[in-house]
Amino acid sequence: MIAVIIKDYSDFFGSFPKFMSNKNPIGIFDSGLGGLTVFREIERALPYEDIVYFGDTARLPYGSKSKDTIMRFSTENILFLLKKKVKLVVVACNTSSSFALDYFKNIFTVPVLGVIKAGVDKALKLSKTQRIGVIATKSTIASARYKKELLDCDKNVIVYSKACPLFVPLVEEGVFTGKIVDGAVNMYLKSLKGKVDTLILGCTHYPLLKTAISGYLKGVYLIDSAKEVSLRVRMILEENNLLNNTKRKPKKEFYVTDKPREFMKSAKIFLKKEISRPKVVNV
Amino acid sequence: MIAVIIKDYSDFFGSFPKFMSNKNPIGIFDSGLGGLTVFREIERALPYEDIVYFGDTARLPYGSKSKDTIMRFSTENILFLLKKKVKLVVVACNTSSSFALDYFKNIFTVPVLGVIKAGVDKALKLSKTQRIGVIATKSTIASARYKKELLDCDKNVIVYSKACPLFVPLVEEGVFTGKIVDGAVNMYLKSLKGKVDTLILGCTHYPLLKTAISGYLKGVYLIDSAKEVSLRVRMILEENNLLNNTKRKPKKEFYVTDKPREFMKSAKIFLKKEISRPKVVNV
Repeated sequence: MIAVIIKDYSDFFGSFPKFMSNKNPIGIFDSGLGGLTVFREIERALPYEDIVYFGDTARLPYGSKSKDTIMRFSTENILFLLKKKVKLVVVACNTSSSFALDYFKNIFTVPVLGVIKAGVDKALKLSKTQRIGVIATKSTIASARYKKELLDCDKNVIVYSKACPLFVPLVEEGVFTGKIVDGAVNMYLKSLKGKVDTLILGCTHYPLLKTAISGYLKGVYLIDSAKEVSLRVRMILEENNLLNNTKRKPKKEFYVTDKPREFMKSAKIFLKKEISRPKVVNV
Repeated sequence: MIAVIIKDYSDFFGSFPKFMSNKNPIGIFDSGLGGLTVFREIERALPYEDIVYFGDTARLPYGSKSKDTIMRFSTENILFLLKKKVKLVVVACNTSSSFALDYFKNIFTVPVLGVIKAGVDKALKLSKTQRIGVIATKSTIASARYKKELLDCDKNVIVYSKACPLFVPLVEEGVFTGKIVDGAVNMYLKSLKGKVDTLILGCTHYPLLKTAISGYLKGVYLIDSAKEVSLRVRMILEENNLLNNTKRKPKKEFYVTDKPREFMKSAKIFLKKEISRPKVVNV
């Protein structure tokens, strides 16, 4: 094993097996579509990497489910990616990242990176008042993982957490603005108004509601971790000499557990380009 | 096999195996909680029957998923109920009923009853204008099963169908009235307003939004099929001499695939009484 030189990545586990080649793909999984925001940023930051994306569309959403179930589903998803010989797994789903990462540490040799720490670091960097809000799914909030990471870095931070279960269905329904969204934003964010100067969007779907949220919480920094995550992936691969340097056109593969056509259609909106038809698999 | 004398139950399949005793329980499955509305009515109509209720809370919702996935999940659920030696399976989930019933016909010997036909019959009985609306999940609407059943019974009916994907998350969030619900009701039901005199609530969750829906569609009959289904179950068991006539206190068992505590808590709201703690199983 090559030791991995990672200092403050508390949501990065494992080390690269010796046999791992820089030509192996990066693996990303999410409960569904939302992780495509992470896919897009990784593609931008690392244009020569092959990527295998897995969306567990048959069992989504994860955000309302229990720790045990999320751990079981996530483990099955990673085992699938490992069959595809990925060199690194990115857990694009915030709920999985919140619950399952500590558990993966003891199971897999291939490194696993979550999305929590990237958002936490950026929020701490931007906040001036040290009053930081976190909005996410029920399960992510119940895990208290964001709060723990924030306080581990700076014990003077005051964290305001709020679960927003209607935000994902609204985004999936394509309703990004208007009365219903404003009503939901008001219902969930009223208690944060005037209190925080920075808000972590702790779910991959939430950036699509940015307009409504920033209209309601004027002047508050909104943190979308996808970009930060992609920079971490690049740093980790660089530090371990595992960047793909072939400079050829990379391969992108998509796998889902249900509804490949809908996935393809929505992917076009997320990525602003066509993707190859995802293969349906049963993990 | 004993022949089952059922004339117009197009969503009832199978016949009772000869070895089946009247003391065997009734099985009910749903993707989660919603089927408890059916459980409640069956309990009322058949007070001496043992009931096994199965809620697939780890894989819910079904309403956004594909036919293949719904068929696979539903088959696994029925196999679980058969291990519990149920004499009859009620598919309380509208989405499963829409897609999977025709398929079950060829697989299981034990009879399987869906929830579609009950709502259809009641709607046809009440409607005076023969203009009937159906609201349900995306998948139920995509199956066109309600429309087909309505037109099979009366080809002069005009059917207005509308998927309402935000209704289930609203109910699960406990938001039954107010601005957000009114916004969603207006968004989905605007196209039905003034057109229908009867509306089938084609999803077990929707009856909880009755106040908002009837406020918006004044004078329209709202059809909730749970009660009708329970009467069909009683008739079928009576016709086949399979009513439990022991007159002892019946056993009620609950099984879920995730979150037993939440299930128990919500069941108390649905059933207005405590239930025994559900067992968690992996099907």
